[in-house]
Amino acid sequence: MVKYKQIAQEITDYIVNNNLQQHDQLPVIDDLAQSFNSSKSTIIRALDILEAKGQIYQVQGSGTFVRDIILPGFINLNRPEGLTQTLIGSDIETRVMSVSIIKPDATMIENLRCGPNEDVYLVKRMRYLAGQPIVYEVSYYRKKYVIFLNKEIAADSIFKYLRENLNIKPGFSNSYFEVSPMDEEIAGYLEVAPEEYGIKLINQFFLPNGATFDYSILWYHKDRSKFFVPSTYY
Amino acid sequence: MVKYKQIAQEITDYIVNNNLQQHDQLPVIDDLAQSFNSSKSTIIRALDILEAKGQIYQVQGSGTFVRDIILPGFINLNRPEGLTQTLIGSDIETRVMSVSIIKPDATMIENLRCGPNEDVYLVKRMRYLAGQPIVYEVSYYRKKYVIFLNKEIAADSIFKYLRENLNIKPGFSNSYFEVSPMDEEIAGYLEVAPEEYGIKLINQFFLPNGATFDYSILWYHKDRSKFFVPSTYY
Repeated sequence: MVKYKQIAQEITDYIVNNNLQQHDQLPVIDDLAQSFNSSKSTIIRALDILEAKGQIYQVQGSGTFVRDIILPGFINLNRPEGLTQTLIGSDIETRVMSVSIIKPDATMIENLRCGPNEDVYLVKRMRYLAGQPIVYEVSYYRKKYVIFLNKEIAADSIFKYLRENLNIKPGFSNSYFEVSPMDEEIAGYLEVAPEEYGIKLINQFFLPNGATFDYSILWYHKDRSKFFVPSTYY
Repeated sequence: MVKYKQIAQEITDYIVNNNLQQHDQLPVIDDLAQSFNSSKSTIIRALDILEAKGQIYQVQGSGTFVRDIILPGFINLNRPEGLTQTLIGSDIETRVMSVSIIKPDATMIENLRCGPNEDVYLVKRMRYLAGQPIVYEVSYYRKKYVIFLNKEIAADSIFKYLRENLNIKPGFSNSYFEVSPMDEEIAGYLEVAPEEYGIKLINQFFLPNGATFDYSILWYHKDRSKFFVPSTYY
């Protein structure tokens, strides 16, 4: 990863770890350069991309200020790399229903942009927040990239495993969502009446080179899920 | 606005106006510099922030590629400046219920971060997509910044009016949403049964200096609204 993107990540971590709140001021560029052991021009580039990502704002002649990144109780859709990242510190439990290898159908081929004969890992999981069902998740991973998965790995953060064990970091993702009735099976997992509405979120995850490696359908419990999206103009 | 942010905006317009699709390749930096009449270093900074905003991705040694900005039928929550921007080309009608000046209550004071004696414009509108009710909108604008509003202005895009007539451009915004039952009045506007669920979206809009100038509560018809959020990692 290029230096200024790495520094941008470190500044994000600094904001989150120090629990800085929206409108809190960041140190001046000279001080950031010293703290993060980099040049002023690297800091300036890092701040530009953090501003574009909606994590800070820069006021000419006045300074750099923090925006909300972690918002207690809200799922930040600009950080869709998993519940464990966006609900940091929350009590999340995972129940893995199944991990299997399948051949993709037409929908998967379209969403994964994969070949019809590729192997695909299918993972079904339920996530619980403070003991209550919050989301049912069906994920498809191209085996070409995610060479190994099992129930033990899926019981924890899969994205952490990908990052730390397979050296896979997503480059970007698209999320699509709507409100839709759930079928009996999904409603059962979420412990609500059949035909109850859920929040259906579809995520497509891309590698930095643009290849799709993961496609997930998530059904959130409508009464227990709140979302948050920070945006930037220009 | 600084040069590279302006160029970033022009590149976005170029992508939208030329109807470029996800994974389409952009011209090389030299050609962009020539087309947009700017230096290579300005193009590089503009591409960096467009990448962070989720509008392009850059592959080292390979080039720059487009991501979806306008997705037919979807409301892009990274462009929350209004339906007319995110549903470009759609047949949107607006019915203005009321425009009035009020004093803020505790919730408005908190959300607008305004003084208790400030004047606030309250605007209530219904938006229709292809003749069908899609969203009921209650917006609060601080009169300190939005010095004038009336029903005629509110019948069109308010953000266009702010930009073109009052020289107000939002710097950034936060969107929060959840699924919630609607009261009888709102359900009536959306032409659904009372107590029906709606998608409740709260938007806070900030000026580039961090001051809040607008706070809106939007109730989307759950069966007619689909949303889209592009994200970027690092």
